[in-house]
Amino acid sequence: MQREKPSIPQGTRDFLPDQVQRRRWIIQTIQSVFEAFGFLPIETPAVEKLSTLTGKYGEEGDRLIFKILNSGNFTDGVDNQSWQLKDIHKLTPQICEKALRYDLTVPFARFVVMHQHEIVFPFKRYQVQPVWRGDSPQKGRYREFWQCDADIVGSESLIYEVECLQMYFFALQKLGFKDFTIHINHRKLLSAITEKLNIQEKFVDFCVAIDKWDKVGWQGVQKELVERGFQEPHIHALQVFFEPVEDMASHLEHLKKQVADLSSGGQALHDLEKIWQILSQSNPEILSHIKLDLTLARGLNYYTGCIFEVKLGGVVMGSVGGGGRYDNLTALFGKDGLSGIGISFGIDRIYDSMLELNLFQNLPAISPKVYIAYWDETHLPQIFQIATELRKHHIATELSHKNDKIGKQIQLADKKKIPFVLIVGENEIQTGQLTLKNLASGEQTNLTLSQFIDFFTHGKH
Amino acid sequence: MQREKPSIPQGTRDFLPDQVQRRRWIIQTIQSVFEAFGFLPIETPAVEKLSTLTGKYGEEGDRLIFKILNSGNFTDGVDNQSWQLKDIHKLTPQICEKALRYDLTVPFARFVVMHQHEIVFPFKRYQVQPVWRGDSPQKGRYREFWQCDADIVGSESLIYEVECLQMYFFALQKLGFKDFTIHINHRKLLSAITEKLNIQEKFVDFCVAIDKWDKVGWQGVQKELVERGFQEPHIHALQVFFEPVEDMASHLEHLKKQVADLSSGGQALHDLEKIWQILSQSNPEILSHIKLDLTLARGLNYYTGCIFEVKLGGVVMGSVGGGGRYDNLTALFGKDGLSGIGISFGIDRIYDSMLELNLFQNLPAISPKVYIAYWDETHLPQIFQIATELRKHHIATELSHKNDKIGKQIQLADKKKIPFVLIVGENEIQTGQLTLKNLASGEQTNLTLSQFIDFFTHGKH
Repeated sequence: MQREKPSIPQGTRDFLPDQVQRRRWIIQTIQSVFEAFGFLPIETPAVEKLSTLTGKYGEEGDRLIFKILNSGNFTDGVDNQSWQLKDIHKLTPQICEKALRYDLTVPFARFVVMHQHEIVFPFKRYQVQPVWRGDSPQKGRYREFWQCDADIVGSESLIYEVECLQMYFFALQKLGFKDFTIHINHRKLLSAITEKLNIQEKFVDFCVAIDKWDKVGWQGVQKELVERGFQEPHIHALQVFFEPVEDMASHLEHLKKQVADLSSGGQALHDLEKIWQILSQSNPEILSHIKLDLTLARGLNYYTGCIFEVKLGGVVMGSVGGGGRYDNLTALFGKDGLSGIGISFGIDRIYDSMLELNLFQNLPAISPKVYIAYWDETHLPQIFQIATELRKHHIATELSHKNDKIGKQIQLADKKKIPFVLIVGENEIQTGQLTLKNLASGEQTNLTLSQFIDFFTHGKH
Repeated sequence: MQREKPSIPQGTRDFLPDQVQRRRWIIQTIQSVFEAFGFLPIETPAVEKLSTLTGKYGEEGDRLIFKILNSGNFTDGVDNQSWQLKDIHKLTPQICEKALRYDLTVPFARFVVMHQHEIVFPFKRYQVQPVWRGDSPQKGRYREFWQCDADIVGSESLIYEVECLQMYFFALQKLGFKDFTIHINHRKLLSAITEKLNIQEKFVDFCVAIDKWDKVGWQGVQKELVERGFQEPHIHALQVFFEPVEDMASHLEHLKKQVADLSSGGQALHDLEKIWQILSQSNPEILSHIKLDLTLARGLNYYTGCIFEVKLGGVVMGSVGGGGRYDNLTALFGKDGLSGIGISFGIDRIYDSMLELNLFQNLPAISPKVYIAYWDETHLPQIFQIATELRKHHIATELSHKNDKIGKQIQLADKKKIPFVLIVGENEIQTGQLTLKNLASGEQTNLTLSQFIDFFTHGKH
């Protein structure tokens, strides 16, 4: 067989034990918040039908979806003209029926429709799974990355907008972040603005342009709007909506004067005010982390109500979370009338940010607790008895793989960051008194096996 | 956008909350055994380079690997002749550079070579991740399924053979299985048998034929051997090795007379005897679950020493686990001299078997603990205060999404299998005395919020 220098695809990663431990900690922290809010876990397959995903993420999304080549003779039945012309748009769906999940929201909508008779609405689900996108890798952007989503489907109640904001707040706090902002906006507020200026037909262009505000500023947005065919008076009129305002309450007052008379504007302001009112009376400490941000538009077209995006301070990283309300996503799969709302955490960006902000410092190193060193291989049966007792008590135990010099065995334990070494020889087996060495302090103690188990299960170490 | 009746690819599955909970329980149970034995978790990407996987699983494996179509114009640079001839063998590596993981062992070997300077040998790792194979789906066989592997690489010590057997035993016991058998064999014993009969050149044919024993019996194996060109005297001479023997000790004695004089046979018998001896002196209760099975060959060619396979009683299901020692798997990726051994649990078959054997009966239903029902939406700020307190104490709480009639709200909680409903109205908010209804017993209790929290965090419910 050929030898090859091993490598992995661009934008994918291996995770070493320390990294797995940290990632698990992040996931468990977020999960525990979702569970406290009454969300239940589901999982969907990594591999979906290509037709389930196509057309749901815009043209660029369709391009970035990873497609899986059909098994067997994939050229069977392919239309000859496309093959001769190498027409990849026509060929792709003919040679690929399956694709890798691109996000967790569309598979969830598919899931809800397929399992509508097995679940109870409003259905609160969370889901932590990898997704794949053919984007060019860069800082904080991978081709295989993990999303951690919570969605509620089957109710229009604003209590879920409140819960989404609370879950961001509690999860980020638990993870140890101090400086974070949850940007909030309402798609109907953006509609109302275009309606007010009578440029509704340019709604998408408007959203795309203003969404770039935090990267290019008002100057850049103006330039983009001109390029997209907006007239000078409209651009001027738009500016008033984006003037900096002190706090959310006065921002809402300000906006009321502009768009409350329009039905979309009225509804958006009603929603935002109600959310603000509930939070200020029940959970006021959250308010300083929430910012009404009219420049937030979110790329995905399925959003119809409140939209969210989370940004961290102190670290240069794209948003670490986003979400919003979508009124009819399940209609794509044949079920109307189910409003939904959800949020997503980007596990990988959260990991990278926590590393940069040094937020993992209190997580202990991952390693077994006890290493058993020995002089004589004929003692292996007794050593296994000891190991089995420790393991039955959930004390992670590694046996030395050979009867090297004891010093060498201890060295190996140290390299493996195992804190305690149990040294077993003839004497220990005869007397039942085992020798435990603490590698950090160098201290040695003699104890019976049951005293050891006591020490490890009840003691402080 | 078009409407489509949603479905998922053949051989893949969605998991509903109850299923996720049970699967998690299985995984955590096995993981806890691996951790007690000192194994550390790693993860590798789902997507590997196709060249990493090709040629590692035999010809059939190469066919069953799911390949990922290159992004962008996949026809770029494809050689024209292959395209015109639709030569899929030549085209596939030209249009697909990536593929989905087929098992966890080959990616682990790749990982060990790539990260050899970041890990300490002998390296004990475990890994729980999905794998993908284009097999035809049938009972217990999926196209996307989960493996749960533990491997040790960098030592030839037989203590790891012992640990592998112990881990199977403890994990299956913890999962609740009573009737299970760990079949054990040694590839060198199989070599010795062919050496003895001077038919070494037919080793692979021999292994393929006898591996079918449990499906087709000795009659079927004989037929297969004839078809594969074995002579009658050889077949007759083989039979003696496969005669039923009472227990492993006498089986080993019996084999000694036949093949102990050959170096491969001598080594195999030494290994098996030593393993047997350690187990009988340290962990004798395991012995009745282990069976020396000379018909076990394992399909994968990389095994060179002991091999294992686990079968369950009381349920018709293929093996739920397998593994063995491989002396030089990392050589494929440029690193020689690292012997390894590992075992794998098939999570999906374990799940399906536990369901059939009714072993999940003690796992409680997954649901939030408390549902808050209310009369008046204007109380939402106070209701959120109560919910937040409960959630901060890890009491999973769901709020009613609207102020329906209380009876209807309670009905919904019941449908959601939530055991307790907290009913909040004007009176409750004024007095601070909340009403808790136990849906199983119908009982109602009045308590303050802190009494409730006490009840849920310390009480029995």
